[in-house]
Amino acid sequence: MFNLPTYLSSGSQWIEEALDRLVLPADTRPAPLHAAMRHSLFAGGKRLRPILCIAAAEACGAKRGAALFPAAAIECLHTYTLIHDDLPCMDNDELRRGVPTCHKVYGEAIALLAGDALQSLAVELAAQSPVAPLEIVKELVDASGSVGVVGGQVEDMLGESLPPDAERLQYIQQHKTGDLIVCACRMGVLASGGSPDTLEAATRYGNAIGEAFQIADDLLNVTSTADQLGKAVGTDADRGKMTALSVYGLDGAKDRLQKLIQTALASLSGFPGDTAPLAALANHVATRKN
Amino acid sequence: MFNLPTYLSSGSQWIEEALDRLVLPADTRPAPLHAAMRHSLFAGGKRLRPILCIAAAEACGAKRGAALFPAAAIECLHTYTLIHDDLPCMDNDELRRGVPTCHKVYGEAIALLAGDALQSLAVELAAQSPVAPLEIVKELVDASGSVGVVGGQVEDMLGESLPPDAERLQYIQQHKTGDLIVCACRMGVLASGGSPDTLEAATRYGNAIGEAFQIADDLLNVTSTADQLGKAVGTDADRGKMTALSVYGLDGAKDRLQKLIQTALASLSGFPGDTAPLAALANHVATRKN
Repeated sequence: MFNLPTYLSSGSQWIEEALDRLVLPADTRPAPLHAAMRHSLFAGGKRLRPILCIAAAEACGAKRGAALFPAAAIECLHTYTLIHDDLPCMDNDELRRGVPTCHKVYGEAIALLAGDALQSLAVELAAQSPVAPLEIVKELVDASGSVGVVGGQVEDMLGESLPPDAERLQYIQQHKTGDLIVCACRMGVLASGGSPDTLEAATRYGNAIGEAFQIADDLLNVTSTADQLGKAVGTDADRGKMTALSVYGLDGAKDRLQKLIQTALASLSGFPGDTAPLAALANHVATRKN
Repeated sequence: MFNLPTYLSSGSQWIEEALDRLVLPADTRPAPLHAAMRHSLFAGGKRLRPILCIAAAEACGAKRGAALFPAAAIECLHTYTLIHDDLPCMDNDELRRGVPTCHKVYGEAIALLAGDALQSLAVELAAQSPVAPLEIVKELVDASGSVGVVGGQVEDMLGESLPPDAERLQYIQQHKTGDLIVCACRMGVLASGGSPDTLEAATRYGNAIGEAFQIADDLLNVTSTADQLGKAVGTDADRGKMTALSVYGLDGAKDRLQKLIQTALASLSGFPGDTAPLAALANHVATRKN
């Protein structure tokens, strides 16, 4: 019987240890830069993206070690986007997961540069995959560029204070959140030598849980407490952000979330290996509390 | 007889056309992001790094087209570093090459993200090289990471207002400026299928002209005018920056510059093809006026 809490804690510990080995020590010259990179990398992240990457590899019949490099890469890339999102010229957040943000501890300039270096490190790690390194690098940069995560971030900013708009919200969710989640799943398949059909199944799975994840996030922003969430709540409405709630309403958003989980589960028949972790992760995304 | 001005103008025009083809149009969604990326990419850069990349390919007996992708990649990477360097939390520069900086035109948030997207695009382009794409990607990210350009940038900041120190200055020059110049030369060799010995010669050449370039830059900051340079002069001393002048003195810096050019010229025997462009470029770096 598959046990998700055990799987999550074992997976996140495995990722933490891998990152600790793969990222230069905090006293490496220049020390403030490496300390800042490590501050944000080890600030209590749930490691969802690397765990999805591992679970996708396992669903191809591989061991999790096959996805070591892309899993570490996606976490570095995700962390860089968080550091830059938190900067004063962006969301100006002081706290993330209950921990002071990078620029609050190291100053804006070092935080900016720590994000830049983590983006570079992500590619460096992806390029070290023993299987399909070039394909994995391409997957990573396609997901992270001007028509990927960065594009989603810009549309999100442009959408603030605009009237709710389902088409724009789709674009934002797809790119700001979805692209990295799809990328994590696809890289896990690529690192396991999976077939094009399996890669396609990973895309369907990732797209569904990517949007589900964002809707769950939007719901938590109104239904959770700062204590549970480790960051301020109610901030989306304060900023006039376009969210699943402002576009679909509370019931509409919950309904959509359930349908997306069904889509994710239906995609699992496209994987040749053990899909219990991916199935449990899909359900987890919809029901998480923080 | 080799004509450098013709070579430079033909090379930079060729690069501009390549970038124009390879970078998404300014009206691509999200439009402000792509417009900002293009604003800085086409803001009158001299294209020194991509021209070095092409010249290194030619010195291996290849046509410049062999180095198309790495040449475009290095210019995108360089441009991203300039956009981030100019941000208010860094150098807070309003003008570069006589043109308003990215954040002055598009705002800080879009400028930050345009830099992020250009870093991603640089890797995307490097990965498209028909020859040695993975090696070229690795070269690019090694040069740009926390012990490359970003590390040099951080040490440069940390060095402000510290007493002159030759060891620290070496570190800053090597990484902040040198690494990308070495990388440009080495990628040109890799894209041409050059031998390990040629790659080694490219490293020696790049290291020498990289430091020469930075010394020339430091000299121009005190000997040039804002009109000639297209940006403010005398700013290094105002900021208490550690430069070749504060460490070696004016005569010492000029002397060191000449020796570096000799080292660069001596390395050229390691290339199998036409080294006239690389030779002329080495001399040009030492004598440029802006």
